[in-house]
Amino acid sequence: MKNLIEQLRTFAKERDWGQFHSPKNLAMALSVEVAELVEHFQWLTQAQSDITDPKNLEEIKQEIGDILIYLTMLSDKLGIDPIRAAKDKIKINNKKYPIETVKGRAKKYNV
Amino acid sequence: MKNLIEQLRTFAKERDWGQFHSPKNLAMALSVEVAELVEHFQWLTQAQSDITDPKNLEEIKQEIGDILIYLTMLSDKLGIDPIRAAKDKIKINNKKYPIETVKGRAKKYNV
Amino acid sequence: MKNLIEQLRTFAKERDWGQFHSPKNLAMALSVEVAELVEHFQWLTQAQSDITDPKNLEEIKQEIGDILIYLTMLSDKLGIDPIRAAKDKIKINNKKYPIETVKGRAKKYNV
Amino acid sequence: MKNLIEQLRTFAKERDWGQFHSPKNLAMALSVEVAELVEHFQWLTQAQSDITDPKNLEEIKQEIGDILIYLTMLSDKLGIDPIRAAKDKIKINNKKYPIETVKGRAKKYNV
Repeated sequence: MKNLIEQLRTFAKERDWGQFHSPKNLAMALSVEVAELVEHFQWLTQAQSDITDPKNLEEIKQEIGDILIYLTMLSDKLGIDPIRAAKDKIKINNKKYPIETVKGRAKKYNV
Repeated sequence: MKNLIEQLRTFAKERDWGQFHSPKNLAMALSVEVAELVEHFQWLTQAQSDITDPKNLEEIKQEIGDILIYLTMLSDKLGIDPIRAAKDKIKINNKKYPIETVKGRAKKYNV
Repeated sequence: MKNLIEQLRTFAKERDWGQFHSPKNLAMALSVEVAELVEHFQWLTQAQSDITDPKNLEEIKQEIGDILIYLTMLSDKLGIDPIRAAKDKIKINNKKYPIETVKGRAKKYNV
Repeated sequence: MKNLIEQLRTFAKERDWGQFHSPKNLAMALSVEVAELVEHFQWLTQAQSDITDPKNLEEIKQEIGDILIYLTMLSDKLGIDPIRAAKDKIKINNKKYPIETVKGRAKKYNV
């Protein structure tokens, strides 16, 4: 992860792109990359979405790469460690969604 | 990162939530979490978006946590290593955006 | 539609919110509202997503209202007629997706 | 608007695409189209985002067309009138954001 942050700092510095990388812009770019990922799944059934075709999987891998790139750049800008943030959030979710209450139920509409 | 994957597998298993976690659904959930992040920045100027207020920063940290959680779950489901994906994508971007061509210019509209 | 534009101009003017309503910000706000709509569907199967429960339907109606509000404000700002834009796009799509080629096939992956 | 709904029904029917158009899928497609709109603005300053260049404006018009297309299809599917929904939401917002309280302040962070 540290190595990834370093590579991204170098990439942006070499291109003088720091001027475009306000948190606001990075958040927008992140949302655009996520939509490019969503596009792969929009017309599929849930069963079909377990994609195994190597060509599609390679494209999806690149989208996931882009998403982590922008997430890491934004986190770096705001001084946040994303892995730490995820682990802390799991602790919060553990309390928010007690096993006995939510087992087998989706969070919304409790189908 | 490996530790994060383990924690997420346990969290879903304990709640029997695996049934909801198709790649299609996880991609949707990821897009929803990113929008909750974007919401923090939507009315701010770019300068204001360098958020330093501790309360806002804590909320943003939680959104970043949620995003990495869903990104990791989706990657785990598809057998993709997100950090590897990001580093491979940087190599592709290095070729796609040669320093001499793009220096100081935004990718779109080349303002 | 014209009446809707008038109502939105008045609403923003009364609150002196025009200063926040740059096309960039309105596009962000639009994406946030769409995610609030997506949230209603993220854990549902496609069959379940044909929502008929009045309470959920009322919430979804409000999200659709918010989306059209921001889409209309953005269009108004850029001098675009959204209904005209939709009809012109249908003409383009008619050529882009010839019936004989695409019948019964999703646009991506041609499952 | 009624005319637009008719055109969209015909377009989908001719292509036998109704099978893909569950509310869940339409909501995803809507989010993807919105991101294509957001992409036009992501690296611009707010002042630059008042786009006047005819070429860019034509592209943005097409994105707005796509967004209204999916919003209309989803609304049609769920029996919701989007213009009615927007007007009803304005009434709710009028109460939610009283002029005297919010004048000149963004909804979040009250900068």
